[in-house]
Amino acid sequence: MKVVVIGGVAGGMSAATRLRRLDERAEIVVLERGAHVSYANCGLPYFLGGVIEERDALLVQTPEALRARFRLDVRVRQEALSVDPAARSVRVRDLTTGDEYEESYDRLVLSPGARPFVPQLPGVERAFTLRDVSDTDRIAARLDAGARTAVVVGAGFIGVEAAENLRRRGLDVTLVELGEQVLPPLDPEMAAPLADELRAGGVRLALGTQLKEVRAHDVVLDDGRTVPADLVLIAIGVRPDVALARSAGLTIGPRGGIAVDESGRTSDPAVYAVGDAAEKRDGLTGESTLVPLANLANRHGRLVADAIVGRPVAARPATATAVVQVFGHTAAATGWNEKRLRAAGRPYQALHLHPGSHAGYYPGASPIALKVLYDPTDLRILGAQAVGADGVDKRIDVVATAMAGGLTAPELADLELAYAPPYGSAKDPVNMAGMIAENLATGTDRTVQWHEVSALRDAGATVVDVRTAAEHARGAIPGAVNIPLDELRERTAELPDGDLVVHCQVGLRGHTALRLLAGLGRDAANLDGGYATWSAGRAA
Amino acid sequence: MKVVVIGGVAGGMSAATRLRRLDERAEIVVLERGAHVSYANCGLPYFLGGVIEERDALLVQTPEALRARFRLDVRVRQEALSVDPAARSVRVRDLTTGDEYEESYDRLVLSPGARPFVPQLPGVERAFTLRDVSDTDRIAARLDAGARTAVVVGAGFIGVEAAENLRRRGLDVTLVELGEQVLPPLDPEMAAPLADELRAGGVRLALGTQLKEVRAHDVVLDDGRTVPADLVLIAIGVRPDVALARSAGLTIGPRGGIAVDESGRTSDPAVYAVGDAAEKRDGLTGESTLVPLANLANRHGRLVADAIVGRPVAARPATATAVVQVFGHTAAATGWNEKRLRAAGRPYQALHLHPGSHAGYYPGASPIALKVLYDPTDLRILGAQAVGADGVDKRIDVVATAMAGGLTAPELADLELAYAPPYGSAKDPVNMAGMIAENLATGTDRTVQWHEVSALRDAGATVVDVRTAAEHARGAIPGAVNIPLDELRERTAELPDGDLVVHCQVGLRGHTALRLLAGLGRDAANLDGGYATWSAGRAA
Repeated sequence: MKVVVIGGVAGGMSAATRLRRLDERAEIVVLERGAHVSYANCGLPYFLGGVIEERDALLVQTPEALRARFRLDVRVRQEALSVDPAARSVRVRDLTTGDEYEESYDRLVLSPGARPFVPQLPGVERAFTLRDVSDTDRIAARLDAGARTAVVVGAGFIGVEAAENLRRRGLDVTLVELGEQVLPPLDPEMAAPLADELRAGGVRLALGTQLKEVRAHDVVLDDGRTVPADLVLIAIGVRPDVALARSAGLTIGPRGGIAVDESGRTSDPAVYAVGDAAEKRDGLTGESTLVPLANLANRHGRLVADAIVGRPVAARPATATAVVQVFGHTAAATGWNEKRLRAAGRPYQALHLHPGSHAGYYPGASPIALKVLYDPTDLRILGAQAVGADGVDKRIDVVATAMAGGLTAPELADLELAYAPPYGSAKDPVNMAGMIAENLATGTDRTVQWHEVSALRDAGATVVDVRTAAEHARGAIPGAVNIPLDELRERTAELPDGDLVVHCQVGLRGHTALRLLAGLGRDAANLDGGYATWSAGRAA
Repeated sequence: MKVVVIGGVAGGMSAATRLRRLDERAEIVVLERGAHVSYANCGLPYFLGGVIEERDALLVQTPEALRARFRLDVRVRQEALSVDPAARSVRVRDLTTGDEYEESYDRLVLSPGARPFVPQLPGVERAFTLRDVSDTDRIAARLDAGARTAVVVGAGFIGVEAAENLRRRGLDVTLVELGEQVLPPLDPEMAAPLADELRAGGVRLALGTQLKEVRAHDVVLDDGRTVPADLVLIAIGVRPDVALARSAGLTIGPRGGIAVDESGRTSDPAVYAVGDAAEKRDGLTGESTLVPLANLANRHGRLVADAIVGRPVAARPATATAVVQVFGHTAAATGWNEKRLRAAGRPYQALHLHPGSHAGYYPGASPIALKVLYDPTDLRILGAQAVGADGVDKRIDVVATAMAGGLTAPELADLELAYAPPYGSAKDPVNMAGMIAENLATGTDRTVQWHEVSALRDAGATVVDVRTAAEHARGAIPGAVNIPLDELRERTAELPDGDLVVHCQVGLRGHTALRLLAGLGRDAANLDGGYATWSAGRAA
């Protein structure tokens, strides 16, 4: 059997090496358009910032090493021009010599990846993208040539990583984002503290605006501003590279990626596709989706190799879990966010909390802002987001695993998570999220969201701040009455008639206040996530 | 309704505060024998070591604060002497005044905890235990009085934490353990690197021996050695405190704890029990077990409050997840270990791996030794252990959550875990464990364990080290033939007839070698966990 793999990174190389382990005798050819295979794509921004010091560290594998270990015929700088599915043949151009040749196959694996989307704008040819080692080399050359100012366009994960790392190199950096928040995968109240973190790190933010023109040493934004930029990096998203698939007549899916079945097979039974170019099935809806993440590319590469040798395989629907470092903070997310749920018209319940990364009495604990979204009917977890200085990736990994296991949001309360003072709390943040969900599900708590407060107040509700007078003085919701929780029992007579919204700093004392009032016959709602979430939402 | 809670820490206080939130009008009395409630039990060793600097930091709550917030009648230094279930009354002694009185109840919650087990030995009254703030005060006084040498008896989690923290205070510390390994909750090959870490931290280890006598400034061990000890701390385990339950005629379970049903109710329908004194149901067998961990105590305290107000509740069976810091290392475990599975005669498959805590090309990655145990028939995960400098608690929390969700070991391969270079790898350690399990389940890999190698070799098997010559030279399995993986295809003729055991450093190249040989028609077994696990096992 002869297998040709197009694309020698992540998914493609996972397929090729797994295939060799399953079939010592197969002929395996890997064609890579670029100059490198199996490079550390996700490490590129950190190399620019000098965190990864050696360029060689990015080159995880070489063609020679792959040949020696896996007997792979790895050819770099080979561009697949077209596929002839009837002849089972690929037309290839050697980018070094310019020669063209045909490569036949019994099975073809497409792993061409995605291309950065670059809008058609005046001067945009001066801008860089950051997708492979060659991109990195070009940017590094500009830095070495003395670039002092940079504009990064797009405040997604890669844009934020690039902005931080260009700051680390000492550049004056402006991050331009069309949306009103950084890190669009997060909901606005979760992203707001990260905007602060970026600003504190010296990154200027230009939100709600977009690039209009790239000039020699500055850019023009659509609000008319000019921003100095010796270096412009565009990171506003990627598009599946489906040119080859399209030329081969393969079915393109509804999201613009290569359509594949559960085994990674395309509409041509001899052709498979993996990685950023291939569509995935969404874990929530089962519909087609695009998830350009390395773990799924690797996983599906392995799966396709299994499929090629005839093993029964079925890719799990994708949840999409991701994490990003933002200076001293970490932000991570899994599943759907609230914006997307709302836009899709799906019912959901959100909850916010701000527990410590570990026991408060042990030094070094820091707050984690944690948000969990779940279905209010079957209580299935739909997504989660977390932001903080420590322990953020752990909590999102736990929720992602709970989702994979089909646990409900209240069942998070029962997880037995490793606790010692340096690592967590007897009630871990994830447990606490479960307890809140259980309280909501049983009617033991009733919450309102940060964005609902002003309308409730306008409708006559009284906002009661049950924090201490000192906390209230440091910042409060306009019009809120301050009755500290520990005085509330004695001061209920001060509460006006009508609807009550109680709140504390993070939601915990608010819950106790709600229960206290319920016990005295007064209904109240508790502001979910407390003043912390409300103020983050207002800043968003 | 009047509820009396005996024991004002963890489970007891969780029950009392939750009950107040559910019933504003209940009369709630909390009787605590000690001088403090809701103290940071798990922080005590760190206070001794000076990591937690302020003693007040340990006192998370005070009776006054609990009264103000939750209208709890919290009484410290009140010893419950006996319970009269028929009269629904507790006889209480005020340890300050010596007065005795009766306290009636409608519902009683027992949360007396566990007592450190102290063997009857000459001079043992000179030894300390470390269970509450008063114990800590006594030990701190001895430290302040100039203790320079210490013997800690018992190398479990608390003993190890105490030994490390006494070292931190500058004492000359010997850790005495009856077993042949430190940290008995781990299997020996997992614990071996932690023994090294303790020694590197300056803790002397006396394994396989026990205390015979405590004298004024030294101890005598049963091997005849004397060890200097201005301070002796006994931490060889705890026993459920069931004196009161027994006096009340409550059923004591097979493991010596208070027997409770799924709602935490004892054999007396008006009496509940939670925390270290109460038996749990084991997650694997459903049988009674003791799990003296804070998270379950808190969880069950909350659950019992729900039960008292008539909510339907059912405690989940206990998996038991725990973590401990050992100088620069972390060790964590969940579920059953191999020793216990073997002793119980349960079939299991073990797998070991040594992946990096995050992507190797990003600075600061360190190896994690990860072990997963699962049922070879239904592939259900039975337990896991991990040891390393970073990211250990996260991986065990993920596996514990996977167990709660009923995932099989191969399904760990499909978890979508947060990946960016500072946090993990595109194939996370937990994913890799899943891939190994899947390879084993499908016959794609076949492993032997570290402790099986010498018998196989004695039976004529050839051990083939597929690492590089340089790795082989740094340390090898006696008698192993070294053929580096990248030369194996060309050198198979050198392999003798008969059984082959291939191995590399961690198991990954060994797997590739096995597949290569299988493709050439030669069967081989791969040494699980490679030389790293084998050498740790030999050191154990």
